[in-house]
Amino acid sequence: MRTIKLLVSYDGTDFSGFQRQANARSVQQELESALEPLEGKHVTVAGAGRTDAGVHALGQVASIKLRSAIPTADLVQAMNARLPEDVRVLAAGEVDAGFHARFSASGKAYRYRISNTPFISPFERRFAVHISRSLDLAAMRDAARRLVGEHDFSCFQAKSEKVRGSVRTVARSEWSEEPLPEGGRLLIYDIAGSGFLKYMVRNIVGTLVEVGDGHRTPASIGGLLASKNRAAAGPTAPPQGLYLVRVDYDAAAPVSSSVRP
Amino acid sequence: MRTIKLLVSYDGTDFSGFQRQANARSVQQELESALEPLEGKHVTVAGAGRTDAGVHALGQVASIKLRSAIPTADLVQAMNARLPEDVRVLAAGEVDAGFHARFSASGKAYRYRISNTPFISPFERRFAVHISRSLDLAAMRDAARRLVGEHDFSCFQAKSEKVRGSVRTVARSEWSEEPLPEGGRLLIYDIAGSGFLKYMVRNIVGTLVEVGDGHRTPASIGGLLASKNRAAAGPTAPPQGLYLVRVDYDAAAPVSSSVRP
Repeated sequence: MRTIKLLVSYDGTDFSGFQRQANARSVQQELESALEPLEGKHVTVAGAGRTDAGVHALGQVASIKLRSAIPTADLVQAMNARLPEDVRVLAAGEVDAGFHARFSASGKAYRYRISNTPFISPFERRFAVHISRSLDLAAMRDAARRLVGEHDFSCFQAKSEKVRGSVRTVARSEWSEEPLPEGGRLLIYDIAGSGFLKYMVRNIVGTLVEVGDGHRTPASIGGLLASKNRAAAGPTAPPQGLYLVRVDYDAAAPVSSSVRP
Repeated sequence: MRTIKLLVSYDGTDFSGFQRQANARSVQQELESALEPLEGKHVTVAGAGRTDAGVHALGQVASIKLRSAIPTADLVQAMNARLPEDVRVLAAGEVDAGFHARFSASGKAYRYRISNTPFISPFERRFAVHISRSLDLAAMRDAARRLVGEHDFSCFQAKSEKVRGSVRTVARSEWSEEPLPEGGRLLIYDIAGSGFLKYMVRNIVGTLVEVGDGHRTPASIGGLLASKNRAAAGPTAPPQGLYLVRVDYDAAAPVSSSVRP
């Protein structure tokens, strides 16, 4: 059996998320359906990150086990010929048998996009969240920086989820801005770290927007983390602003998983 | 009656074009439906360019006659509150009574986007045309330059259409390229001129792509124009790559109609 690493991009708008679900359209199911005729039997696709409904990916990574001897370049071509247009396999490469997209991952990077404009462009409505009111970006930057480091992030974890450990290391947490041709600006939040809890990025963004609104201070972030109380943090930001940008692996893998928006 | 100039942007994907049609969704009809409750009766919207089904606009201009005294900033707000998300009014301003979006226009600018990549990004599939084969951009640039100036463009006019005069002046006709994060490049064609015949930009792009494929030479463009023969030109390029970028007016109008992608 060959182990193959796939680099995958998708527009999450019309998906119920990455993971296969009964009676709902998932990226995993689309990838598996595209692989089945190539292998002659069902192939299970393991994704690095279980992106939620409506969340996009620029550089999702998936791993598969394949008996077929198809060259990886032909595999990419054949999968894209079968996949719907909202998912593309960008690259494929053979990796060590022990590689698993999810369990081998050493880190991930996400991006969140906010159209901070009077009116959101028709071209951005699926790809960013619209906030027309004025936001204090300096305060949001200050608050974001306070998330860098090793912390217990349980205050930002979905209430439904109870994973054993909620300590994660955040290496990067910062806002940037770009002027928009229609007026206003695009606010971009980049966060990278060792791992992410369920809804963690969206709950962080919802909280940082409250800082931008003046409803919280940047200095309050330390106490919020210490509280480990989901109810003390802000709301979950909508999915359409979120992108899985990159998945990192310690061992050099033959496929670059770095794709930037 | 007040005369008001509107600057409008739309994602053309789900429209049958700008112009009102029976049993089809049009931008004009959406704008008119958003205006009716404000004016208390039907308001006819005149668009500067009748973009075809699937064609986008960054800076379409429309004019209306309004009895209502609503301030233009409130008009923009109220229209956007009623419009579907794929159309936005970017600005509105009062103009001279003689102003008509179409008849007062002195020029227009269009852009056409080609994703020249092995696989088109899921995020570009509605907003660019995909060509995976290698194209000779230098030849396409050379051919594009030969369209600048005053010419009879009947060879690029839809066969169905017979307007009285087909002489137009093209002020700009050029290709640029940008590298894409997923590999490959985005090819951007910008054309600006005094006016455009039906399908003219898409027929020009279809012809310039044939030059990029080596099926025509840049030097053949002169003879093609002289032939005035639609059958001698290339095919009509698909609509999803085309954007109405800007409409120009000689007299200084209070609303900027310049929006860049």
